[in-house]
Amino acid sequence: MSAPTYAFKGPSAPPSSFPTASSLRIGIVHARWNTECIAPLVKGAVQAMKKAGVKEENIVVESVPGSWELPAGTQRLITAGQVQASSNVDDLMGATSLLDDGGNADASSQSSSKASRAAFDAVISIGVLIKGSTMHFEYIAQSCCEGLMRVGLDTGTPVILGVLTCLTEEQALQRSGVGEGAGVHNHGEDWGTAAVEMAEKCNRWGKGKVEAGGAKNYA
Amino acid sequence: MSAPTYAFKGPSAPPSSFPTASSLRIGIVHARWNTECIAPLVKGAVQAMKKAGVKEENIVVESVPGSWELPAGTQRLITAGQVQASSNVDDLMGATSLLDDGGNADASSQSSSKASRAAFDAVISIGVLIKGSTMHFEYIAQSCCEGLMRVGLDTGTPVILGVLTCLTEEQALQRSGVGEGAGVHNHGEDWGTAAVEMAEKCNRWGKGKVEAGGAKNYA
Amino acid sequence: MSAPTYAFKGPSAPPSSFPTASSLRIGIVHARWNTECIAPLVKGAVQAMKKAGVKEENIVVESVPGSWELPAGTQRLITAGQVQASSNVDDLMGATSLLDDGGNADASSQSSSKASRAAFDAVISIGVLIKGSTMHFEYIAQSCCEGLMRVGLDTGTPVILGVLTCLTEEQALQRSGVGEGAGVHNHGEDWGTAAVEMAEKCNRWGKGKVEAGGAKNYA
Amino acid sequence: MSAPTYAFKGPSAPPSSFPTASSLRIGIVHARWNTECIAPLVKGAVQAMKKAGVKEENIVVESVPGSWELPAGTQRLITAGQVQASSNVDDLMGATSLLDDGGNADASSQSSSKASRAAFDAVISIGVLIKGSTMHFEYIAQSCCEGLMRVGLDTGTPVILGVLTCLTEEQALQRSGVGEGAGVHNHGEDWGTAAVEMAEKCNRWGKGKVEAGGAKNYA
Amino acid sequence: MSAPTYAFKGPSAPPSSFPTASSLRIGIVHARWNTECIAPLVKGAVQAMKKAGVKEENIVVESVPGSWELPAGTQRLITAGQVQASSNVDDLMGATSLLDDGGNADASSQSSSKASRAAFDAVISIGVLIKGSTMHFEYIAQSCCEGLMRVGLDTGTPVILGVLTCLTEEQALQRSGVGEGAGVHNHGEDWGTAAVEMAEKCNRWGKGKVEAGGAKNYA
Repeated sequence: MSAPTYAFKGPSAPPSSFPTASSLRIGIVHARWNTECIAPLVKGAVQAMKKAGVKEENIVVESVPGSWELPAGTQRLITAGQVQASSNVDDLMGATSLLDDGGNADASSQSSSKASRAAFDAVISIGVLIKGSTMHFEYIAQSCCEGLMRVGLDTGTPVILGVLTCLTEEQALQRSGVGEGAGVHNHGEDWGTAAVEMAEKCNRWGKGKVEAGGAKNYA
Repeated sequence: MSAPTYAFKGPSAPPSSFPTASSLRIGIVHARWNTECIAPLVKGAVQAMKKAGVKEENIVVESVPGSWELPAGTQRLITAGQVQASSNVDDLMGATSLLDDGGNADASSQSSSKASRAAFDAVISIGVLIKGSTMHFEYIAQSCCEGLMRVGLDTGTPVILGVLTCLTEEQALQRSGVGEGAGVHNHGEDWGTAAVEMAEKCNRWGKGKVEAGGAKNYA
Repeated sequence: MSAPTYAFKGPSAPPSSFPTASSLRIGIVHARWNTECIAPLVKGAVQAMKKAGVKEENIVVESVPGSWELPAGTQRLITAGQVQASSNVDDLMGATSLLDDGGNADASSQSSSKASRAAFDAVISIGVLIKGSTMHFEYIAQSCCEGLMRVGLDTGTPVILGVLTCLTEEQALQRSGVGEGAGVHNHGEDWGTAAVEMAEKCNRWGKGKVEAGGAKNYA
Repeated sequence: MSAPTYAFKGPSAPPSSFPTASSLRIGIVHARWNTECIAPLVKGAVQAMKKAGVKEENIVVESVPGSWELPAGTQRLITAGQVQASSNVDDLMGATSLLDDGGNADASSQSSSKASRAAFDAVISIGVLIKGSTMHFEYIAQSCCEGLMRVGLDTGTPVILGVLTCLTEEQALQRSGVGEGAGVHNHGEDWGTAAVEMAEKCNRWGKGKVEAGGAKNYA
Repeated sequence: MSAPTYAFKGPSAPPSSFPTASSLRIGIVHARWNTECIAPLVKGAVQAMKKAGVKEENIVVESVPGSWELPAGTQRLITAGQVQASSNVDDLMGATSLLDDGGNADASSQSSSKASRAAFDAVISIGVLIKGSTMHFEYIAQSCCEGLMRVGLDTGTPVILGVLTCLTEEQALQRSGVGEGAGVHNHGEDWGTAAVEMAEKCNRWGKGKVEAGGAKNYA
C-alpha cells in the first residue's frame, strides 16, 4: 500500500533503539526440517538481535526435530531459564548446585562465564512448513501455532512466531532471504527485532509502566 | 437488511450515554503492519471514546510489531494496569515505590499527574491482516483471535477485537474509513464505543447488578 | 428424514413438562447486529421459557455490541448472578450491602421485589452472523462458539448457543421466524426450551441424581 | 485395505474379553436431533456393552437437546456420578443424605437397588450432525468435538466420541446401521466396545499397571 | 530442495548419539484402525529407539481403539508411569504396595524385573487417518492433534505426533514404509528418533542446562 499522510500525528514509529538490550537473554528454538531455509532464518534473527544490542553470549540456540515439537521445546526452554535463574540464587546463598551433575560437555552454560543465567526475556520459535500431498501441513501448522500462543500466554514470556507456512518451496526460500529479487526478504530479521522489542515492553509492563499521553497523537 | 416493525417493544437501543465514562481507563494495543489502516483505526477508536466521555489522559496507546503479538501485549498491558493499581495502594501506605527505578522518560505514567493509575476497564486490540500468497494470514488470524478471546476470559477484562481480516487491501482501507463511498466506514469508531459499553457493563455485572424487567419488552 | 419404527422402545421424547421451571432464573445475552433477526429470536426464547413455566421476572435480558462480546458478556453475567446470590446471604446476616452504591436507576434488580436473586441456572447467548466479503464472519463465528463452549464448561452453568451463522440474509430471517413458508422457524423457541431443559437436568445431575433404567428401552 | 502379512508379531488384536466389565458403570448422553439415527446408535452401544459383560442396570442413558449440549451434559453427568459415589460414603457414615430431597420419581437411581452408584468409568456422547445450508454444521461439530476432548482430558474419565458428522442423510443412516448393504454398519456398536475397553485400560493405568514386553512383538 | 552452502556454520546436525538412551523409558500408544499401516509404523518407532540405545524392556506399547482415544490414552499412560514411579518410592520405604491387587497376568510390569518403573521420558502417539466420505476425518484429526498438543504441554512430558492424516490409502502405505519406490519412507523411524531426542533434551532443560555459544555459528 502507498502510505497516506495524516492530519494527526499517528502511531509512533517502531523503536529505533533498545536501551536494555545488552542485559536481555533471548532463546531461539528451531526445527530442522527444510534446513536450507532454517539456517538463514536463524542467522537473520541472531544478526538482528546483535544489531539491536543483544550480546551474542546471551542468545541461546537450541533445536528440535520438527515444528510439532516447537511448543514443547519453547515451554521447556523457558523453564530451563527459570531453573538456571533460581540456581543462581542458590549459588549466592552458598549452596552447592546439584545441577552440575551429569552435565554434558557441550550443553552447559558454564562454558561461558560471561553468559547470562537469567530467565529468558523472550523466545523465538522457528520452523518452515511446506504444503505436501497429505493434510500433514494443515494439522502441524494449526497445532504448532496454537501451542506457541498457549505457551506465550501461560508463561508470560513473549514467544515470537517464526514459523513459515508456505504452499511452495519458492515461497519459503524467498521469505528466508535466499535468492535475489523484490520478493526476497529474510523474515528472521523481523523476528529478531520483534523479540527484542517484546522483551523490553513486557519487562516494562511487568513493572507497571505504560506509555502516557499516546492518545494525544490522535487528536 | 431493512428493519421490520414489531408488535413488541424489542431490544433496547445501544446506550446513548455512558455515565461512568469519565472515570474509565482504557488501553489500546495496536500492531504496526499496514500502518495506513492502523493509524485511522486507532484514531477512530480514540475519538469515539473521547466522544463517549473518556478522558484523553486515561487512554493508553501501546504498539506491538504484528498481530501475533496482540494477545501477549494485551495480556501484559492488563497486568501492567493491575501492578500500577496495587502500587498506588502502596503509595498511600507510605511505601517507597520500587517501580520508579529505571523508568524511561517516555514510558512513565507519572508524566501526567491527572492520569488514572487504576486497572484497565477494557482493552482494544487493533491489527490489520491482509491475505497473502502463503497461509500466514490464516494461521495468524486464527491464533490472534483465539488468543484474544482467551485473554478476555482469563482476566475478566473486556477485550475488544479490533482486527480486520481482509482478502484485499481495498477492503482494509474501506473498513479503516479511508477514501469515499457507501462502503467506507471506520470500524475503529465502533470498537471505541464497544469498549466503553463493555467496560461499563462488566463493571456493573461485577457488582452483581443486572437489568431487571427486560423480558417485558418481548411480551 | 422419515422416522422409522423400532422394535425397541428407544429414546424418551423431549420433556413435556418442567416441574421446577417456576423457580429457575435464566439470563439472555444478545448482540445487536442484525436486530431485525435478534428481536424475534429473543422474543421466541422468552416466550418459550414463559410457556415452559419460567416467570417473566426471572428472565434477565442484557445486550452486548456484537457476537465477539457474547462469551465475555455471558461469563460476566453468570458472575453477576453469583455475586447477587452471595450478597443475598450477606443481607440475611445483617451486613450492609456495598453493592447498592452507585446503582443505576435502570439497572438494578431491586426494582422488582419478586425477582429471583439466585445464580443463573442457564444463559442463552444470541447473535446473528451473516457472511460478508472479508473473513470477519469466519473468525468471529469460530471465536464466539469456542468462547461460549469454554464459558459453559468453566462455570458449570449451561450456556445455550443462540448464534446463527448464515451465508445469506434470507437464511437468517427464515431461522428467526420472519416471513412465511415451510423453511421459516424461529430458532429462539428451541433455545428457550433447551435452556429450561438443561437448567433442570444440570441441577438434577449436580445433586447426584441420574435416570435409572434407561438402558432397558434398548433391549 | 488388504492386510499384509508381517515377519514380526505386530500389534495385539483388540481385547476379546473384558474381565472387569460386570463392575463397570458407563453413561450415555445423546442428543435428540435426527432421532431415527440416534435410536439405533444408542441401541448399538447398549447392546455391545451388554455383550461385553456390562450389566444393563449399570448403563445410564440421558439425553440433551442437541450436539452443542453434549460436552456440558457429559461433564455434568460425570460430576453426578462423583456426587453419588461420595454420597454413598456418607451413607456408610450414617449421615442423612440431603440428596433425596426433591427427587423426581423418574430420575432417581434409588429405583434400582442393584444399580451401581460409583463414579462413571466412561461416557459415550452420541449425536448426529448433517450438513445444512448454513455454517451451523461446521461450528457445532467443531465446538462439540473440542468440548468433548476437553471434558475427557479435564476429568480423566474416558469420553467416547459418538458423533456422526455427515454430509447427507444417507450417510448418517448407513452409519447408524439402518437399511441394508455393504456400507451399512452401526457405529454405536464400536462406541460401546470402545467405552468398555477404555474404561478397563484407564482403570488399569490409574493403578500404575502397564503392558510389559510389548516391544518384543516388533523385534 | 537442494541444500545451499553457507558462509556461516549454521545449525548443528541432528544428534548422532544419545548418551542417556539406556536409562530412558518411552511409551507408545497406538490406535488400531488401518492396522496394515500401524504395525510397520510401530515397528519403525521401536527399531529406531532400540538403535538409539533404548532398551527393549523400557519401551511400553499400549493400544486404544482409534485416534480419538489417543490423547486420553497418552495422558493416562503418562499418569500410569508417575504412579509406578511413586510406588517404587513406597517400596523403598518398606510400604506394602496396594497396586499389586487385582493385577492382570498380561498387564504387569513386574513380569520383567529389569524393566524401568520410572515416569515416562516421552510418549509416541500413533494413528492413521484416511479421508472418507463424511467429515469424520477432519474432526477426528483436528481433535486428536489439539488434544495431543495439550497433553504434552499440560504434563511437560514430550508427546510425539505419530498420526498420519492422509487423503488416500496409498499415501498412508507409503508413509508407513510399505511397498517400494522413492516416496516410500517409514515415518515411524523418525518418530522413534524424535522421541529419544526430545526425551534427552527435555530432561536436560529440566535441569536448567542449555546449549551455550550456539549463536556463534551464525556470526
